[in-house]
Amino acid sequence: MIKVGIIGASGYTGGELLRFLKNHSEVEVTAATSRKHAGVPIKKIHPHLQDIDFKFTDLSPEKIDADLVFTATPHGASMRIVPKLLERGIRVVDLSGDYRFDDIETYEKWYGFKHENPLDAVYGLPEIYRNDIKKADLVANPGCFPTGSILAGLPLANEKLVDLMIFDCKTGVSGAGIKPSDVTHFPNISDNVIPYAVTIHRHGPEINQEINKYAPVKVSFTPHLVPVIRGILTTVHTFLKDDLTSEEVESIYDTFYQDEPFVKVLDAGEIPRLSAVRGSNYCHIGCFDIDENGRIVIISAIDNLVKGASGQAIQNMNIMYGFKEKKSIEFMGLHP
Amino acid sequence: MIKVGIIGASGYTGGELLRFLKNHSEVEVTAATSRKHAGVPIKKIHPHLQDIDFKFTDLSPEKIDADLVFTATPHGASMRIVPKLLERGIRVVDLSGDYRFDDIETYEKWYGFKHENPLDAVYGLPEIYRNDIKKADLVANPGCFPTGSILAGLPLANEKLVDLMIFDCKTGVSGAGIKPSDVTHFPNISDNVIPYAVTIHRHGPEINQEINKYAPVKVSFTPHLVPVIRGILTTVHTFLKDDLTSEEVESIYDTFYQDEPFVKVLDAGEIPRLSAVRGSNYCHIGCFDIDENGRIVIISAIDNLVKGASGQAIQNMNIMYGFKEKKSIEFMGLHP
Amino acid sequence: MIKVGIIGASGYTGGELLRFLKNHSEVEVTAATSRKHAGVPIKKIHPHLQDIDFKFTDLSPEKIDADLVFTATPHGASMRIVPKLLERGIRVVDLSGDYRFDDIETYEKWYGFKHENPLDAVYGLPEIYRNDIKKADLVANPGCFPTGSILAGLPLANEKLVDLMIFDCKTGVSGAGIKPSDVTHFPNISDNVIPYAVTIHRHGPEINQEINKYAPVKVSFTPHLVPVIRGILTTVHTFLKDDLTSEEVESIYDTFYQDEPFVKVLDAGEIPRLSAVRGSNYCHIGCFDIDENGRIVIISAIDNLVKGASGQAIQNMNIMYGFKEKKSIEFMGLHP
Amino acid sequence: MIKVGIIGASGYTGGELLRFLKNHSEVEVTAATSRKHAGVPIKKIHPHLQDIDFKFTDLSPEKIDADLVFTATPHGASMRIVPKLLERGIRVVDLSGDYRFDDIETYEKWYGFKHENPLDAVYGLPEIYRNDIKKADLVANPGCFPTGSILAGLPLANEKLVDLMIFDCKTGVSGAGIKPSDVTHFPNISDNVIPYAVTIHRHGPEINQEINKYAPVKVSFTPHLVPVIRGILTTVHTFLKDDLTSEEVESIYDTFYQDEPFVKVLDAGEIPRLSAVRGSNYCHIGCFDIDENGRIVIISAIDNLVKGASGQAIQNMNIMYGFKEKKSIEFMGLHP
Repeated sequence: MIKVGIIGASGYTGGELLRFLKNHSEVEVTAATSRKHAGVPIKKIHPHLQDIDFKFTDLSPEKIDADLVFTATPHGASMRIVPKLLERGIRVVDLSGDYRFDDIETYEKWYGFKHENPLDAVYGLPEIYRNDIKKADLVANPGCFPTGSILAGLPLANEKLVDLMIFDCKTGVSGAGIKPSDVTHFPNISDNVIPYAVTIHRHGPEINQEINKYAPVKVSFTPHLVPVIRGILTTVHTFLKDDLTSEEVESIYDTFYQDEPFVKVLDAGEIPRLSAVRGSNYCHIGCFDIDENGRIVIISAIDNLVKGASGQAIQNMNIMYGFKEKKSIEFMGLHP
Repeated sequence: MIKVGIIGASGYTGGELLRFLKNHSEVEVTAATSRKHAGVPIKKIHPHLQDIDFKFTDLSPEKIDADLVFTATPHGASMRIVPKLLERGIRVVDLSGDYRFDDIETYEKWYGFKHENPLDAVYGLPEIYRNDIKKADLVANPGCFPTGSILAGLPLANEKLVDLMIFDCKTGVSGAGIKPSDVTHFPNISDNVIPYAVTIHRHGPEINQEINKYAPVKVSFTPHLVPVIRGILTTVHTFLKDDLTSEEVESIYDTFYQDEPFVKVLDAGEIPRLSAVRGSNYCHIGCFDIDENGRIVIISAIDNLVKGASGQAIQNMNIMYGFKEKKSIEFMGLHP
Repeated sequence: MIKVGIIGASGYTGGELLRFLKNHSEVEVTAATSRKHAGVPIKKIHPHLQDIDFKFTDLSPEKIDADLVFTATPHGASMRIVPKLLERGIRVVDLSGDYRFDDIETYEKWYGFKHENPLDAVYGLPEIYRNDIKKADLVANPGCFPTGSILAGLPLANEKLVDLMIFDCKTGVSGAGIKPSDVTHFPNISDNVIPYAVTIHRHGPEINQEINKYAPVKVSFTPHLVPVIRGILTTVHTFLKDDLTSEEVESIYDTFYQDEPFVKVLDAGEIPRLSAVRGSNYCHIGCFDIDENGRIVIISAIDNLVKGASGQAIQNMNIMYGFKEKKSIEFMGLHP
Repeated sequence: MIKVGIIGASGYTGGELLRFLKNHSEVEVTAATSRKHAGVPIKKIHPHLQDIDFKFTDLSPEKIDADLVFTATPHGASMRIVPKLLERGIRVVDLSGDYRFDDIETYEKWYGFKHENPLDAVYGLPEIYRNDIKKADLVANPGCFPTGSILAGLPLANEKLVDLMIFDCKTGVSGAGIKPSDVTHFPNISDNVIPYAVTIHRHGPEINQEINKYAPVKVSFTPHLVPVIRGILTTVHTFLKDDLTSEEVESIYDTFYQDEPFVKVLDAGEIPRLSAVRGSNYCHIGCFDIDENGRIVIISAIDNLVKGASGQAIQNMNIMYGFKEKKSIEFMGLHP
């Protein structure tokens, strides 16, 4: 039984963490902080969590009593909180972008801040870094787009089969967070598809960093907002350097992910769908169709709030403490 | 550990049963039948159930090896299957309408069939019949609208506070089942609200039957299809005979449901929402606002496929076998 | 050819007015004001209006050069602008609630303001007040819910057939206006149905005022937000005092609306749908089903931004100036 | 005043043709055929067309009295009807794929039929073939994806700036037609994004044919179904051979489309959106962002049923008869 705190528990990722931890038999939640809602019962903000009876607090990092803390705080805020927790011997899974980059300059260029407290962290994608995560004190939980994109592209990079990958991603609106804006206003996004940050989204360099550890690949990334609550569907357009069939490529993926509890490689020609992973920590990968120009299409589907955020954070925690990796996140998708 | 079979496992309610049972530690699924898909791996039809590795079969009721069977079969089909199972000593939770009515004539009038095999059954609404369910061999799992409507109306009937209830229900499209039709065609129902069977829906007499066991109440019922996947929001319009405040009515509900694990009574003025129960077995009840004409409004929210169908069926099974009532259905709603 | 100004042209109703007037051959738009967006090209705010080449201005009412002005301003703001326009001999169609009430006390009670400038106005529902609208200098354009509700209920009130009407309304999210809020945030309203202001919505007394001019009827009104962009579907639950068939009631409606260009009475049993009136100025009325308790259900469908706001405002203008009543608003709904 | 017939008037494109023609002052509709619904009033099938009072008929092509006929018939059916109309001196706009291909072998390969009646036809994209359309007796109305894709890609091909174009298209569900299927079943497509025919869609070779008349370009095309009723958003990923800025590319587009009544080129960085063209015959083109790999992204938006089908068919008719090109299709998009 470990003690766990959540800093920034009133947003969507905070709500998901609370939901998963409620049914995790090895964990006691000792703090769920929210500056804005301190003193408010959690279920008044997260209306689904009617079985959770405690309130948000406004504890500072110095006062939290925990073995591990999830920092579900904005980019730029985590860098001020994480060091204080680590100093006190608390392990951290950070859901912001602050500790995802190997290279501080890349971070500072794309996020537009100076990094005040660079620290060594493990990039929390268990499919690559499981062994490092086990011993890590600080895990940088991956971005939502990078999770779906890296998992879709990695086996091809690993085999040095491609030079260029175009990630055309379609994301649900919950990825924009809990705060309303013009673009998340129902009459504006319903019945619409809205490309945004077409060539300048921060998740591009994050995908680039991990893919390029396997092979030199030019990474081009464009996200689109679709009228969907949860989920990221990633369409990878890429060109095979070798002459392979769809089945041969599928076989590479099958092998690459054969021991992974949360990655499901579908049969060649089978298309992943968001509903099949909705609410779940699974990533489905499929398609592998090849056209007359030698373009192969890989499709992946994840839930942006689960495998793309809070579920993966729980998975990381489970690995860090030697719990069963699927504990409290074994849920299969809510289809339909 | 009990052996469980599902007859009619390829529809939405069958998929939900499979999903819940997969994580139920006291149950082994020994058969999932589908005439149409016999021999097909389950995950080819239910794309979210990638962790389930067996196939649909076409076993007849005479051949199923089980302690309990869920019959997720159409109205009119269950009446031919259920007796055969009971004869073999198999307990049954029937998800069709065939065994929900005390009065065969009412059934035959509203369903338009002759009932070939009337049998004694317990109406499977645990909030009313928990003790009977424990010992039942045949549980008639309630309809989706009746579940949300009866739970919303019962405490008022129990106190003899009203003479008339108008149930204006809004249901998600999954309630229409897995088979496509004009009305479920996306371009027809998206961005639309479609009332149907406005005064002649079969769930009307089912609500009427249960409410009238508590008090003589005229029940009027109208369902609307809304562009929502899952969920039934019920708006009850009724007129209080006594002069009560919203808080007093809320207090009646609080008391009535105080020991219920799956019914959550919200504070007066608080509005239940579908997302808060999405994918869950909970029923939220709230509002209690009263207008200048003495009309009080009660609102309930359920997931039609869970508390309105398969989740409640699991709850009934748990009660029948003395398992923890929440076992495998403790999931809180998928919000957002 | 008349000169027309729009005050408050940057919201949804302003956008609709601009869209209709662009194709109105008798009108020249001389001003479209927006304090916030003065100097900005209209098409930067209303991305569909690419054929409109002028900019928002911040003209005060004293400076607008127009024969008629639409005030698409908030409740409480119109009352300060309208008198200044009338003084200058400009006719006004006001889209706010400020001039809809015969009784100032009712207005002040429900809107929570003191009315600073009460004036005589004609309630702009052409189906009742066409002759008065012709000569009016100030037309108070009806609320969106009242338009759909009054048109659905009026023929029954006119025949003194009912004592009580319950209006259970389902509205698209554009009715909440262009400004984002928690409730209009896509992840919160998509796949949801949200009752609000359940017994205290300001449109209740407006419906009550008009219905009660025909017969003493208790009016109960509850709105629900549904995941729809445009449209209000109104379900009227009421009890007939006389013994009539559905066809007889339909016939009353047929007669009542026989000369109305924008009201279509469907056959008994036929259900209006939002898509059939989407983007149009039509109101469809149908159903007329009667249940065993003597409850009759009347259903109406309108587009809240058109017949429920800007389209009806254009209709009023057309009547005021003797233009063809359908001019620039003859569009039939965008189905699917 | 010309006489116009519609063969196959009961589908979505037939409904749109009827809607536009109703308000076209130069046209009289003399026949709207439907084998299935012959004798049924049009408004019973197209519930929005309440102002159209005639019925579907089952006239054969030999009996239709018309100057021009729209054949809104399936692929494979048009080739049997069109020659009979032309023989009688009736001009034809064919909405099927039967006459879109210059090369019969390409048609037969991708459609899987033998072409029974090859004929010379003009490809009905006015932005390329306006002068030919004027004199044409047979116009092959373009496919929906090709319309959005060709308009987005043509100016780059015309300048020989690219060798390869990847068209990643997102289409509304009405593109699948009026007939329900598993994939259009609301619970399956709502809250989902579904790639289909990922490398084998028939519209790929159609795009390829037209683009390659301007420059040798490898065309790769993948469509996705999104939970949207109407609209196709096309994301073109391509790589510039010359070193140009976004503004320079925008300028090429501005010039290319400067005289086009229905193509609107947005400012560089501005993103087209489906709602801005909803229900309209406009095509919006924008973005022009360039990333670090030299990839430029072009985005176009159309309504698949209007510019992608029936609106463009009307535009072609207007050109064929010298009517004002925008006549009856001047409608700007229904936003929100």
